[in-house]
Amino acid sequence: MALDNTWLTEASEATGSAFSLKIKQKLHEEQSAFQKIEIYETETFGNMMLIDGCTMVSTRDNFIYHEMMSHPVIFSHPNPKRVLIIGGGDCGTLREVLKHPEIELVHQIDIDERVTRLAEIYFPELCESNNDVRAELMFIDGIQWVKDAAANSYDIIIIDSTDPVGPAEGLFSRTFYTQCHRVLGENGLLIQQSESPLLHMKILREMHQEMKTASFIDSKTLFFPQCIYPSGWWSATIASKDIVLTGFREDAAENKSFGTQYYNADIHRGAMAEPEFFKNQLSSI
Amino acid sequence: MALDNTWLTEASEATGSAFSLKIKQKLHEEQSAFQKIEIYETETFGNMMLIDGCTMVSTRDNFIYHEMMSHPVIFSHPNPKRVLIIGGGDCGTLREVLKHPEIELVHQIDIDERVTRLAEIYFPELCESNNDVRAELMFIDGIQWVKDAAANSYDIIIIDSTDPVGPAEGLFSRTFYTQCHRVLGENGLLIQQSESPLLHMKILREMHQEMKTASFIDSKTLFFPQCIYPSGWWSATIASKDIVLTGFREDAAENKSFGTQYYNADIHRGAMAEPEFFKNQLSSI
Repeated sequence: MALDNTWLTEASEATGSAFSLKIKQKLHEEQSAFQKIEIYETETFGNMMLIDGCTMVSTRDNFIYHEMMSHPVIFSHPNPKRVLIIGGGDCGTLREVLKHPEIELVHQIDIDERVTRLAEIYFPELCESNNDVRAELMFIDGIQWVKDAAANSYDIIIIDSTDPVGPAEGLFSRTFYTQCHRVLGENGLLIQQSESPLLHMKILREMHQEMKTASFIDSKTLFFPQCIYPSGWWSATIASKDIVLTGFREDAAENKSFGTQYYNADIHRGAMAEPEFFKNQLSSI
Repeated sequence: MALDNTWLTEASEATGSAFSLKIKQKLHEEQSAFQKIEIYETETFGNMMLIDGCTMVSTRDNFIYHEMMSHPVIFSHPNPKRVLIIGGGDCGTLREVLKHPEIELVHQIDIDERVTRLAEIYFPELCESNNDVRAELMFIDGIQWVKDAAANSYDIIIIDSTDPVGPAEGLFSRTFYTQCHRVLGENGLLIQQSESPLLHMKILREMHQEMKTASFIDSKTLFFPQCIYPSGWWSATIASKDIVLTGFREDAAENKSFGTQYYNADIHRGAMAEPEFFKNQLSSI
């Protein structure tokens, strides 16, 4: 069947696939200084934000992505206190990070303040921790911020960006990873959204290669569903400054003091399982 | 963006979501005695079969579904020899089952012979084991076959059907599960495709309830990605006649004698991890 104009579609010519949601109405559209931002009310997924035509976040299914961008990396660090989020303007990752009582400081650096201001209106549940005293939101260039930061500034860096084209391209480069490596402290970990294992293996391979070249001692991809992203199957890749990524603080995860909708210790272990084709593709790195 | 007629779309009004693939050409269309079958050549997913407008199988991503419908249930049975497949007309599940040397007999019962004849033409790699001496393909009513079968006829029943509407509706019922329970032998296991955890929790809840009511002692859902199905996140549910589903033959899975593209022992363990929302939804069953 063809879709009439009650459907909103993100089509990717490069992957030959498209995803659509039935919409009730457009709630907002603007061209910020950096990108085109649109907000729609959908029939079944709540509100949805698009940036430059790409689906970013929906009310219904964002919990999987935000929980997987935060809890696994935090429970993989032996003593996490200082977190830097690059991107993440919808503040859903920030909310999850701040659920961990041991986290003492979070800097969130998103270049586009409009994303956050619109999230506060249309995704208020994601912004409920924005005023936490441990959090500082800054709307500046993340690459420059990391370049200027002192060595040993953070325990964890979370790169919660758009796809590796346009403004976010520099976040997927050896130069940037090298700066991240420098500003991480002992046992430091970085996690970055790493696209679809089905559609973007080339990006995933290159990311692992660049992380290794930037002196990270180990890197590991986590797998999880994400309905509104191309293929519905997504990933995040952890890079480790000086510890081999074999496990995580399982007891702490089993006994976490906060609620989640997707994440738990079993899910964490399960997300680390690598499909055969993925192992084969990465075996030479 | 709107999609022109170079895209083929499966839209679900009920879930308010749609998935599209860019197509090169329609290869075949027919109305069989049971359903409308279409085959397309896509730009990036190889060939794709639709039944009554629903995406069934694509060359590119079918490996995940077929491996997850076969290997976990076989490695969960202590001594599997006799397998019944209900549906499965594209023969991809059959091929995976026959990779296990300990399997002595497979009956595949799909009501529509045309699905298999078209799979032989357009998905020949899925049909490469159709002439295995252990396999018998029959094109008759699966519900009637199970009703007529003797007690203790099979060790494993795989229900590889379309969605629980139309011809396949009866395969998601207590009556059918009760007959399956009867024809399974000691330690018998059933596995059934069980829709999207994100979109179809009502079906999943009811399935677990009906399996229990039909005297299965335990039931457990496995989770995996499946790009061309609604939400891109899919599941299969195992029901056990008389053993509690706690683990599987991990040594055998670790040392399997055949190749796979998705499945391995880690993936098997990972697929058993239940998201928090799923646990909560099923806690009262």
